[in-house]
Amino acid sequence: MVLAVEWLDSPRPMIRLIDQTRLPEAEVMLEVTTVDALVDAISTLAVRGAPALGAVGALGVVVAMLQAETEGWDEATLAAQVDRVRDARPTAVNLAWGVDRVRPAIPMGVAAVLAEARALIAEDGAANRELSRLGADWILARTGKERVRVVTHCNTGALATTAWGTAYGIIHELHDRGALEMVYADETRPLLQGARLTSWELTQDGIDHVVQVDGAASSTILRGLVDVAIIGADRITANGDTANKVGSVALALACRRAGIPFVVAAPFSTVDLGTPTGAEIVIEERDPTEVTAFGGRRTAPPEAIGFNPAFDVTPHDLISAVVTERGVVEPATTPHPELLARIAG
Amino acid sequence: MVLAVEWLDSPRPMIRLIDQTRLPEAEVMLEVTTVDALVDAISTLAVRGAPALGAVGALGVVVAMLQAETEGWDEATLAAQVDRVRDARPTAVNLAWGVDRVRPAIPMGVAAVLAEARALIAEDGAANRELSRLGADWILARTGKERVRVVTHCNTGALATTAWGTAYGIIHELHDRGALEMVYADETRPLLQGARLTSWELTQDGIDHVVQVDGAASSTILRGLVDVAIIGADRITANGDTANKVGSVALALACRRAGIPFVVAAPFSTVDLGTPTGAEIVIEERDPTEVTAFGGRRTAPPEAIGFNPAFDVTPHDLISAVVTERGVVEPATTPHPELLARIAG
Repeated sequence: MVLAVEWLDSPRPMIRLIDQTRLPEAEVMLEVTTVDALVDAISTLAVRGAPALGAVGALGVVVAMLQAETEGWDEATLAAQVDRVRDARPTAVNLAWGVDRVRPAIPMGVAAVLAEARALIAEDGAANRELSRLGADWILARTGKERVRVVTHCNTGALATTAWGTAYGIIHELHDRGALEMVYADETRPLLQGARLTSWELTQDGIDHVVQVDGAASSTILRGLVDVAIIGADRITANGDTANKVGSVALALACRRAGIPFVVAAPFSTVDLGTPTGAEIVIEERDPTEVTAFGGRRTAPPEAIGFNPAFDVTPHDLISAVVTERGVVEPATTPHPELLARIAG
Repeated sequence: MVLAVEWLDSPRPMIRLIDQTRLPEAEVMLEVTTVDALVDAISTLAVRGAPALGAVGALGVVVAMLQAETEGWDEATLAAQVDRVRDARPTAVNLAWGVDRVRPAIPMGVAAVLAEARALIAEDGAANRELSRLGADWILARTGKERVRVVTHCNTGALATTAWGTAYGIIHELHDRGALEMVYADETRPLLQGARLTSWELTQDGIDHVVQVDGAASSTILRGLVDVAIIGADRITANGDTANKVGSVALALACRRAGIPFVVAAPFSTVDLGTPTGAEIVIEERDPTEVTAFGGRRTAPPEAIGFNPAFDVTPHDLISAVVTERGVVEPATTPHPELLARIAG
């Protein structure tokens, strides 16, 4: 398995990332040893996916501390550089969460921060495995089927996480149980994480699937071609409203109409109990040329302006289940202003 | 204005088409003098759009008759070749309608068929103008706004029709009345008719707009950024169910949730009273590589299979208004098994 995010101590200390902008054409590894390089990797989406961003957030503090030693930064400069990592993308809560988790260890030195980051990564992997089991159980119970057909959006596999995957983890778990018939993977414009990354992971894992344009997802659901939609999340608010890759809410609306479950899967670190509802989520707007060009070729006239929100918000009443490693809540049928706090432990 | 479809008598008799697969990068004209060339132009989408297909269907009969004269076809061969034109794409009713409209004139000779085809084209242009007026009236009355923001999908302008446009015609009419604030144009994967063609026409007409990925349409609607969605149609059944470019039904579902009108605009020739409901519509599945590649560059792994339905069906209960040159019906609030027959005259 290719790891999206790894810490290497030699030949020199670095974060090693697979450059996800180059997949599936090429497997290019990035060796990140500076804050500049890390912020660039995050903002260009060389590394992306909420849980993976948590890992690079935590490891990014280590990178900043090592660079501080080399370049003689004072405390304020280090803090500012750590904030640059923390704020490299606004919508995904995990990036800030990863930074904040290890930050208190800074006074104890690099080794302590690195140990904390590694603990975070190990916990994320374990959380992915657990939520995948819980999600598969819930879906098979709810649908009453022995084998299910799944539609998913964007990429939530090992590339988006530290190892196993979230929504993809559930798909993988269903496959391992012999309970998966087919996956419809949305290509996920503008950056095609579904066509490039999810299809690549499904291919590597030997899972039957087709790739469809995002506009096809609604009719695939309405035509009865799938039994469940499973997506990941970049931020889940206290009431269950969920920000995820733009296009996700279309699946939720179609699932409601078709009467099939719409499932959000994420580690509990994606839950932001401090944000009451989706209305308070800042939606990242990315470079308009991601929409108006593709692969270096302009798709729209030179005068055309792209509108490029990276995420959308699915209201909790359209979400059949939010699955985390701590359990499953059902926002559509059990709405509560602080639904997720119930499993916050 | 560039015409999508024109008949030229000199330097030799031909259908002249603008190759829509090359826009907006290049304005390449195709000179069609054989059935083979016409079927190729239709199936590659060099010419597309329901009303434009009606025109090439009718003119295609002229092309077949001239080729029959040159090559000495018997009557059965001519009939078979005309059928090839008629069946070049299965979902759009207008193609067959255009062929069938002029076919009875075949025994009267080429000039009679050409005159009938020209009458069809003139009527289509007039119908577009009329439905645009009716649609703009209806939208301004329904929204109660002086200036509206519109989302649209695919291309329904002069390129898709014989001159003025359907959904695009309404947008153009609103613009001419000073009642248009902004257009959100879906790029419309896989073939990007929105980014390539609608944005090109909006730019030429000086209409403020942005291009968005198809997955953004639902949240653009849910966030309150638009007042109305307007789409064209490839086939409208007797009860108002509408087949249109894949992705259309996502807009309808979001409009319902947002409480804004979802409007279908098409000449009455798009209405198929012989098909009772959308369940009976054959959905064209196109080449899977349209999904898994873009601009000659593979987007998914070589093993990945594309699923490529070209259309989806929006159920009539999600359609606020069907606008034709004969009037406006409101399927969502006035459902009837033969709704469109009421304005069939």
